[in-house]
Amino acid sequence: MSSPKINPAIILVEPQMGENIGAAARAMLNFGLSDLRLVNPRDGWPNEKAVAMAASADSVLENARAFPSVEEAISDLQHVYATTARPRDMIKHVATPKAAALEMHEYASQETAIGILFGKESSGLASHDVTLADTIITVPLNPEFSSINLAQAVLLVAYELYQANDETPAKQLPHAERRANKQELVHLFNRIENELDERGYFDNIQHRRSVILRNMRNMFARFAMLDTDIRAMQGIIKGLTINKKEK
Amino acid sequence: MSSPKINPAIILVEPQMGENIGAAARAMLNFGLSDLRLVNPRDGWPNEKAVAMAASADSVLENARAFPSVEEAISDLQHVYATTARPRDMIKHVATPKAAALEMHEYASQETAIGILFGKESSGLASHDVTLADTIITVPLNPEFSSINLAQAVLLVAYELYQANDETPAKQLPHAERRANKQELVHLFNRIENELDERGYFDNIQHRRSVILRNMRNMFARFAMLDTDIRAMQGIIKGLTINKKEK
Repeated sequence: MSSPKINPAIILVEPQMGENIGAAARAMLNFGLSDLRLVNPRDGWPNEKAVAMAASADSVLENARAFPSVEEAISDLQHVYATTARPRDMIKHVATPKAAALEMHEYASQETAIGILFGKESSGLASHDVTLADTIITVPLNPEFSSINLAQAVLLVAYELYQANDETPAKQLPHAERRANKQELVHLFNRIENELDERGYFDNIQHRRSVILRNMRNMFARFAMLDTDIRAMQGIIKGLTINKKEK
Repeated sequence: MSSPKINPAIILVEPQMGENIGAAARAMLNFGLSDLRLVNPRDGWPNEKAVAMAASADSVLENARAFPSVEEAISDLQHVYATTARPRDMIKHVATPKAAALEMHEYASQETAIGILFGKESSGLASHDVTLADTIITVPLNPEFSSINLAQAVLLVAYELYQANDETPAKQLPHAERRANKQELVHLFNRIENELDERGYFDNIQHRRSVILRNMRNMFARFAMLDTDIRAMQGIIKGLTINKKEK
């Protein structure tokens, strides 16, 4: 195949059952993926049930890495997808697995580091985790029966990635800048939040603070910022927080 | 949806594990399929483990029918697909799940009765069963790890059928937000520039002022801002420009 090798990180956030981690590893290897990351797996890591279920896909488990937070699991990534079953009250692009797969191939051709978040079996991703993502992936499902197993969600996304291998469109960003990674974005968020707190911006609207900050994170995530944008925004913040001169 | 309702028979030939029958029923209902047929299930029929795994997809199991032979299971069908993992030495059309799904939609529009055969977990379909089929479906898989679970094979085929029927936009914003107009953007630019000027941000870098502001305008233009983003950004500017409280 002529298209670049694509190998997004598959990030399972607080997975509960070892069997599902093993089945997800199998689904990954079925479609040539190998970068498995786990955030706080319920039963610790490594997990014997995961190994038993993975069978001959155990190489994926051996190379899996565990992280204490989503932020740390995605810090090196530049574009992150969040898989959600139900609509979220967030202003964020929503893509089918197929559309996301085509987009991921574009990003891969630009050497953008990609990852896909999958939530826990019982309740999916927390809103806080979704806000860290650039784009939501929702599998089109029978609205009367839209409960899908964790490993099956991984399977469908990995399947579409494999399918898209031959459909890579040739499209480039106009410049050679790189996309900001999530660590840079989190630093930006933290700086804005600290500055707003220190200036008392939320003093009379404390009850709205978390919603306002969540919306802000979603907004910046949607902007697909470049590393140069992060520096420019840091400069703007620096300028805006200078105390106004006396006239 | 404009395309006809499609509901091919899903025929599991000599399935061995009840859990896989239940998981296949879930996968079917996830994508709106309901005609499950079983040929000689190893552990008889009905099967408690299938019911436990199917959970709320038990309606599919209740309506499932068991047959003593593939011939009897497909007697009312007019076009039959056989899913196989490995190439068979047979002169028969081979389709991907996606191509088969598109073809099935054509057949459905002609009211052709369709079914899809899935073989047993250990060894797949017998050659004799494959010869009864009109077309072979093979899932494109990593050639180095092409072992796929029975229920996952059903899932992928059902998923493609649903995709072929679906009119979900590939990528969309979830809400009816509108893109900001240029007047709103210019007001935002002017406010940032005025605030930076009044705070003396450019005092020691006057020679770079115009380049910095031009880059800032280009950056915000690339963000494809919504009207709500403009308001959020105005709020952030308001907060950042409050003088820091004395400690």
